[in-house]
Amino acid sequence: MKSSIGVAFIGAGRMGLTHAQTLGNIAAARVLVVADANLEAAERGKILARAERATADIEAAINHPEVEAVMIVTPTDTHANLIQMAAKAGKAIWCEKPIALTLEETQTTLEIVEKAGVPCQIGFQRRFDPGYMRAKELIETGKLGKLESFRSLGRDTYLPNPAGIRPGGGTFLDMTVHDFDLARFLIGEVVEVSAWGAVLAHEMFAENDDCDTAVCMLRFANGVLGVVESARHSNWGYDIRTEVAGSEGKVVIEAPHKTPLQHFTGFQNHTDVYINFPDRFADAYRQQMEAFFAALQNNSTPSPGPKDALETLRICLAAKQSWQQGKPIKVQEAK
Amino acid sequence: MKSSIGVAFIGAGRMGLTHAQTLGNIAAARVLVVADANLEAAERGKILARAERATADIEAAINHPEVEAVMIVTPTDTHANLIQMAAKAGKAIWCEKPIALTLEETQTTLEIVEKAGVPCQIGFQRRFDPGYMRAKELIETGKLGKLESFRSLGRDTYLPNPAGIRPGGGTFLDMTVHDFDLARFLIGEVVEVSAWGAVLAHEMFAENDDCDTAVCMLRFANGVLGVVESARHSNWGYDIRTEVAGSEGKVVIEAPHKTPLQHFTGFQNHTDVYINFPDRFADAYRQQMEAFFAALQNNSTPSPGPKDALETLRICLAAKQSWQQGKPIKVQEAK
Amino acid sequence: MKSSIGVAFIGAGRMGLTHAQTLGNIAAARVLVVADANLEAAERGKILARAERATADIEAAINHPEVEAVMIVTPTDTHANLIQMAAKAGKAIWCEKPIALTLEETQTTLEIVEKAGVPCQIGFQRRFDPGYMRAKELIETGKLGKLESFRSLGRDTYLPNPAGIRPGGGTFLDMTVHDFDLARFLIGEVVEVSAWGAVLAHEMFAENDDCDTAVCMLRFANGVLGVVESARHSNWGYDIRTEVAGSEGKVVIEAPHKTPLQHFTGFQNHTDVYINFPDRFADAYRQQMEAFFAALQNNSTPSPGPKDALETLRICLAAKQSWQQGKPIKVQEAK
Amino acid sequence: MKSSIGVAFIGAGRMGLTHAQTLGNIAAARVLVVADANLEAAERGKILARAERATADIEAAINHPEVEAVMIVTPTDTHANLIQMAAKAGKAIWCEKPIALTLEETQTTLEIVEKAGVPCQIGFQRRFDPGYMRAKELIETGKLGKLESFRSLGRDTYLPNPAGIRPGGGTFLDMTVHDFDLARFLIGEVVEVSAWGAVLAHEMFAENDDCDTAVCMLRFANGVLGVVESARHSNWGYDIRTEVAGSEGKVVIEAPHKTPLQHFTGFQNHTDVYINFPDRFADAYRQQMEAFFAALQNNSTPSPGPKDALETLRICLAAKQSWQQGKPIKVQEAK
Repeated sequence: MKSSIGVAFIGAGRMGLTHAQTLGNIAAARVLVVADANLEAAERGKILARAERATADIEAAINHPEVEAVMIVTPTDTHANLIQMAAKAGKAIWCEKPIALTLEETQTTLEIVEKAGVPCQIGFQRRFDPGYMRAKELIETGKLGKLESFRSLGRDTYLPNPAGIRPGGGTFLDMTVHDFDLARFLIGEVVEVSAWGAVLAHEMFAENDDCDTAVCMLRFANGVLGVVESARHSNWGYDIRTEVAGSEGKVVIEAPHKTPLQHFTGFQNHTDVYINFPDRFADAYRQQMEAFFAALQNNSTPSPGPKDALETLRICLAAKQSWQQGKPIKVQEAK
Repeated sequence: MKSSIGVAFIGAGRMGLTHAQTLGNIAAARVLVVADANLEAAERGKILARAERATADIEAAINHPEVEAVMIVTPTDTHANLIQMAAKAGKAIWCEKPIALTLEETQTTLEIVEKAGVPCQIGFQRRFDPGYMRAKELIETGKLGKLESFRSLGRDTYLPNPAGIRPGGGTFLDMTVHDFDLARFLIGEVVEVSAWGAVLAHEMFAENDDCDTAVCMLRFANGVLGVVESARHSNWGYDIRTEVAGSEGKVVIEAPHKTPLQHFTGFQNHTDVYINFPDRFADAYRQQMEAFFAALQNNSTPSPGPKDALETLRICLAAKQSWQQGKPIKVQEAK
Repeated sequence: MKSSIGVAFIGAGRMGLTHAQTLGNIAAARVLVVADANLEAAERGKILARAERATADIEAAINHPEVEAVMIVTPTDTHANLIQMAAKAGKAIWCEKPIALTLEETQTTLEIVEKAGVPCQIGFQRRFDPGYMRAKELIETGKLGKLESFRSLGRDTYLPNPAGIRPGGGTFLDMTVHDFDLARFLIGEVVEVSAWGAVLAHEMFAENDDCDTAVCMLRFANGVLGVVESARHSNWGYDIRTEVAGSEGKVVIEAPHKTPLQHFTGFQNHTDVYINFPDRFADAYRQQMEAFFAALQNNSTPSPGPKDALETLRICLAAKQSWQQGKPIKVQEAK
Repeated sequence: MKSSIGVAFIGAGRMGLTHAQTLGNIAAARVLVVADANLEAAERGKILARAERATADIEAAINHPEVEAVMIVTPTDTHANLIQMAAKAGKAIWCEKPIALTLEETQTTLEIVEKAGVPCQIGFQRRFDPGYMRAKELIETGKLGKLESFRSLGRDTYLPNPAGIRPGGGTFLDMTVHDFDLARFLIGEVVEVSAWGAVLAHEMFAENDDCDTAVCMLRFANGVLGVVESARHSNWGYDIRTEVAGSEGKVVIEAPHKTPLQHFTGFQNHTDVYINFPDRFADAYRQQMEAFFAALQNNSTPSPGPKDALETLRICLAAKQSWQQGKPIKVQEAK
């Protein structure tokens, strides 16, 4: 096993700071530099990541000779370029999902990574949540029997910044992507999607050709049928629930109440709900990073990788196009 | 308020006996007769319903002068005819869902009932479950704000008798009908359905042109989007869950564990799940009957009525046709 | 099996009406008469019990030749006399707990019942709750291994009528009695009690030489140690929880949320708590009556019987005396 | 605010390694040295704590000039001596509970710490659990009204090493101490204890004049009554539950199921229980350390301190003596 790994951490926006803080507690990482075009942001990230220095020069950070791994949490439209740059520099890569919003750019990036032969992990953190990991284990050991159905629900607590809706690719690419990744993780490849969307809560989604409420049906290669629901806001907290049923049993992955306390008064019992993804998936964010560094130290292939990003993107695009065109779309025909 | 009401109870099959037993504990009812073409069955029903006598002559039971209300729990394909007979005889009617498997027969029956001016309630018992009633109240009093999404899941515990699959109309008409009725009860009218079905568990469904696993998307007149899932068997017990979300809150209707006991051992907590609809909806079955007799005693209109059966049937047919034709179907165009 | 059993129901106060309504739905009972010194109350009870008539003449009701079983829900200080009267008349007896507030009167009554050879069941309804029944079954089949500890908590929702505190015998005899009965039902005989009481909520308890808050320790004959807590009011609903732990496992008997609905809003999940014993133990009240009539029809001995009332009373008195004398009391030395 | 604080971490046994790992992720700490009389153990601790070096020379580690804070997780009988040594050296101190097993030694140590004027925090980690913190907040803001009752249950999963029973002081001092600390934290000072103990599971407790099962009653200065239960083993996982009830409401602090997954099969729902204190209180262990370093950085007094250790020890001793002497003991008279 290698000793600690030199890291360049790129991107110190809101999500970047969350990941920087997690990174600051990973013993296997030696964070050499936090880079952000905004130096002030980089300085904040440096403190949380316990990095040696901050910089606004992203390219130099990536190419620094002591840097062995590059972690990318920049805006989505820069992911592909930065992954390619890191791959060409021979660095291991961890990148927040997605690689890109188009199949072409994702495919190109995947090929460059594969050609470079560098390890590359994509940030689908739910795969590292103890609930989803246990679900996977029960499925793989046959405890659910022959799989029959899948359901995943996601509601983000807070509305996105209006300026970020279009660059994020819209609801299916930005949010439902996590449920589609779970679908592949737990059940297998999806062959067909039928999706409906609507603007029920906020006009800004309509103004950006997006929806704030969506439902989908999924048909899997193994015959399983599924449904997925997404909403862009929730006044009762972060709302994530996945169910998988088979001939022998069912699993439901949903966090029980957050604070280990029940408050009884007025003929009711009141319990706390998780606020948002940073608290609900705190463990998962940490475990996905530990898995990345463990893979580097053990010379094993980190997972999920760019191929997962590509296949999941196909489902996102199929869903978006199904909604836009008003008909089911075969996943392999999505563009 | 009238004193107790003379009842003829028709149909003493499996579901009939469940209803007969419930009826036997309804103080407002005086059960004059239990009728079933099979006299032996009628005799069993007589005991459970605490009836005065049993008979194989259904027509005479309906037309007996002391009978004020007729309760029909016969096979589906006889419902319409018996309702019509009872209506023409001027009797109040309670009938297990559905009225019929076609819009035409349902429409005709509805007209005859309306013309006769007799009270008529259809057996969508979930509307009387304390959970669904409370959900309705929270929705109507605005506690959920503007509604945004609906989800209903239903899995029956035991497989149907193969001989009953085709006469029951198949999964969408026989089972999902309850979820579609809830959709209308809680959210409002449905305008469009898209459904997929599959045979994943038992070939007998394929042999009867039916599916054992189904998913649907619903679009409501008020813009709400919904999903519905159905499965014809479950090895973990009766699996019924409905969710309604809006701008101000969410309700989940699902029974907590059945036995008020938790059993801890081996690093796990084990709790009981309801076996099937008779135990899960025992309260609802009783309350729907009490509501029927209360309506008769108060000269109010019982609900849900034949118009509900008709509108819910449209959704069932739209779902079935969507599945068969591989495209979304407008509910008002379903045939 | 006998056909339906002729019943005289005595006592139509608050608790009496609850039992009368339950009785009205017991098919095995033919309620001939409801008797209460207050005829108006008896008339109300008659309706709920679906009785043939009401009377203010309790003695005549008991002795009526068609009456086979007498059910007693009168004030506590009349129980012993009425049981004795019914026993001497050769009638089967069901009586609300307790038989009497003294060991002497209870013992005398027990002897008269035994001499008369009539069936006699005492109203410890919790034994018929599905949770407690399942706990008993798990214990008896060894699923908990060697028993080690017992805990029972009881909080009544509403304060008692001040005038009823002293005649009820105080907290230990009136309320904790149910927990002591559970202790015997689930674990076995209690040999020693140490109890503390306090008046924390309402001075009326002090004025009646009673406490409103109490804690006890129990030592069982088999070595198990237990604790019991009681409180006379609760603003969050009926609060009943029992735990039994052993070498192989633990059971917790507590009702999950009452309405099968969760209401999410404002980062909290809100669920309903049972209001009071009539809703929490509705099933148990029904099942204890069905068990009584089933025993009569099968000529088996109903349980729990007067011997249970006597042994449980010893624990109540030991607790009360322990509190009053400030020292542990051996159950067999309680007076 | 000071920058990172130089730490000497003393003691790398089982519990020491748990704390060392937590310390390794505390950004505010710079761990200079891990010391353990067993150098091999110290080396293991060094890795987990991310320390600069390991040593077998505890005294040198404490007195090292760059060390500002000493953390002590050695065997109980060495705590007082090490605290005194660190205090005299002018170092801030964090020490696992208890300070000592006697009031005299605890009092002496407390005086030395106070005289030295160094910050000193004792490891009652439950006070930092989000559930207990929220309970405290609800109590202090009056949400529970006037307090009336307290209950705390603790069952450790694994039996202690037989050799550690006597040095740990027995059940009341080693295990129940946490519940007694909670009692003081949530309700206030305890004035009287009555306790019973028994050996029901393992003879080794009898051989060490200890019990494996215990129950206590507590009387608080504010009149509240409480019960506490302790057991030294549990085959269903770590079993910790605390309840506080008042005139306006009740809180229950108990962790919901561990893995965010429900597994349904065979008419049951199966959920995971926490294995033991390291997983149940992982958050609390981290937060108590963060609170300690935050206090040092902010020059505020860390809490709970040695005075808490002293007052809680009095309750432990009162309970132990109550059990041994078979009578209630006033806390201020415990020796």
